[in-house]
Amino acid sequence: MDLFGAVEAGGTKFICGVGNDSGNLIAEQRIETRSPEETLPQVVQFFQEQSRKYEKEIRRIGIGSFGPLDLDPGSSSFGHITSTPKIGWPDTDIPDYLHLNLNCECTIDTDVNAAAYGEYLWGSGRGLGSIVYFTIGTGIGGGAIINGIPLHGLVHPEMGHMIVNHDFSEDPFPGVCPYHNDCFEGLANGPSLHARWKLEPGKIPNGHPAWDLEANYISQALHSVVTILSPQRIILGGGVMQQPALLPRIRKLVQGSLNGYVRSDLMTSEIDDYIVAPLLGNRAGVLGSLALAIKPPGD
Amino acid sequence: MDLFGAVEAGGTKFICGVGNDSGNLIAEQRIETRSPEETLPQVVQFFQEQSRKYEKEIRRIGIGSFGPLDLDPGSSSFGHITSTPKIGWPDTDIPDYLHLNLNCECTIDTDVNAAAYGEYLWGSGRGLGSIVYFTIGTGIGGGAIINGIPLHGLVHPEMGHMIVNHDFSEDPFPGVCPYHNDCFEGLANGPSLHARWKLEPGKIPNGHPAWDLEANYISQALHSVVTILSPQRIILGGGVMQQPALLPRIRKLVQGSLNGYVRSDLMTSEIDDYIVAPLLGNRAGVLGSLALAIKPPGD
Repeated sequence: MDLFGAVEAGGTKFICGVGNDSGNLIAEQRIETRSPEETLPQVVQFFQEQSRKYEKEIRRIGIGSFGPLDLDPGSSSFGHITSTPKIGWPDTDIPDYLHLNLNCECTIDTDVNAAAYGEYLWGSGRGLGSIVYFTIGTGIGGGAIINGIPLHGLVHPEMGHMIVNHDFSEDPFPGVCPYHNDCFEGLANGPSLHARWKLEPGKIPNGHPAWDLEANYISQALHSVVTILSPQRIILGGGVMQQPALLPRIRKLVQGSLNGYVRSDLMTSEIDDYIVAPLLGNRAGVLGSLALAIKPPGD
Repeated sequence: MDLFGAVEAGGTKFICGVGNDSGNLIAEQRIETRSPEETLPQVVQFFQEQSRKYEKEIRRIGIGSFGPLDLDPGSSSFGHITSTPKIGWPDTDIPDYLHLNLNCECTIDTDVNAAAYGEYLWGSGRGLGSIVYFTIGTGIGGGAIINGIPLHGLVHPEMGHMIVNHDFSEDPFPGVCPYHNDCFEGLANGPSLHARWKLEPGKIPNGHPAWDLEANYISQALHSVVTILSPQRIILGGGVMQQPALLPRIRKLVQGSLNGYVRSDLMTSEIDDYIVAPLLGNRAGVLGSLALAIKPPGD
């Protein structure tokens, strides 16, 4: 049995795990995200301890990281976190640090691409060629797997920042995105719910008009994703999606909005199989990072 | 020298061509699109004549077709035009017809994916891994090449039908899309320009407010494409893009709209290299079809 490592590198916490090649985690640790100088040595220490405990080298570590990341293999800063507002973290090279200190290969991608990859290999996207995974919470991020490969290009997707139709007469709230005000994230993330309704998202009751508006913006985003990317399935995770009324409402609105244009039963009678919850739940990030380690995309 | 065939199958005309493996067309014919029973035999006749003239078999034919198409290799109707409103054409299997009558292999994709593939191999997308190609004219279509492969998934992209932000106070025009009213195509295609301003698009003068509004909708679509797909370049073709004021205005609006969020010089100082005209011009469709024949994607 080989040992593989996973690092879900988030803005508030790092979830580190060690697993076998079947994708089972056998150890896990949560580390608070402080400065890279404080946090990364703790990550190294975790893997060193696990390696000693199981008397095996960690063969490869998969990292699903907050970003933005430089994922251009031809770039001198490949694998670096680039321009994050998070103090201390711009230009941090997590894979290089782990490689130097643990002498093991690393595979890095964005947190949402990692989660998408986990769902693609082991979750709600299993058996399909192309999927989109959204996390809708404090931030909104979207990752995509196309022909088995996480989507990169100029940089990587930033699906939270797509444009949606904002009808000010229905929703005068200006949006919270510091870059675009009323992009998808600006109108539909957790903080926008909080600011618009003066209620914490977890305390907004079922039946509250907040959820109709939220479902409206999410369904618009999905309409655009279907027409631009045409994924074979869309997976919706994140804290905001814990509200049980949302998923059925979103499905209905997407179906109405596309209005029969995209000819597939998955857009109409079978839409429950098209827009789904993540099978890995809130484990998609760490398991997706493990997946990056066990089966590096394109290998 | 091998001979390859190209069919740009459009709703009003079929452009058929024969070329060599360097991508040079050596013969070409325009055939009006009538019923399949009238049009397809003329296509076959063209290739038979060329084959006799050059005393060579046609090795493979690439088809860039209007759609929607079934492009699922596992489907029993793979390669068929599916639900087009064009009378006589639903469920037409162009590749099968050409294969039966010419005994040669065919490669089919959507007209815009074919054009994108031509630009990727020989045009404005040369040397890149992922590009998006739009045609903005009577209809609006978008194709994408990701890691060298035309993008398919549930079906194929229908980028004309993405959502844009429609501010009725600025633009009370309801849109012309029969499915979605004010999707991108409904607000920005040629017929919408005509209906909104009571002028043929080709006769709307430079400096007319129509072009500001047009650039606004196109830049919104590009903002969403950048955030969802993150292509390495976007190529804008089609009749509406013949208006010379549009391209510089679109670049400026996209830069302003993304507002520095996507960190790349191509989004700011170098945006003239990011949003570009098709190098193959209005030849992208037929040359892209030829490209599908010469170098079938994924081979």
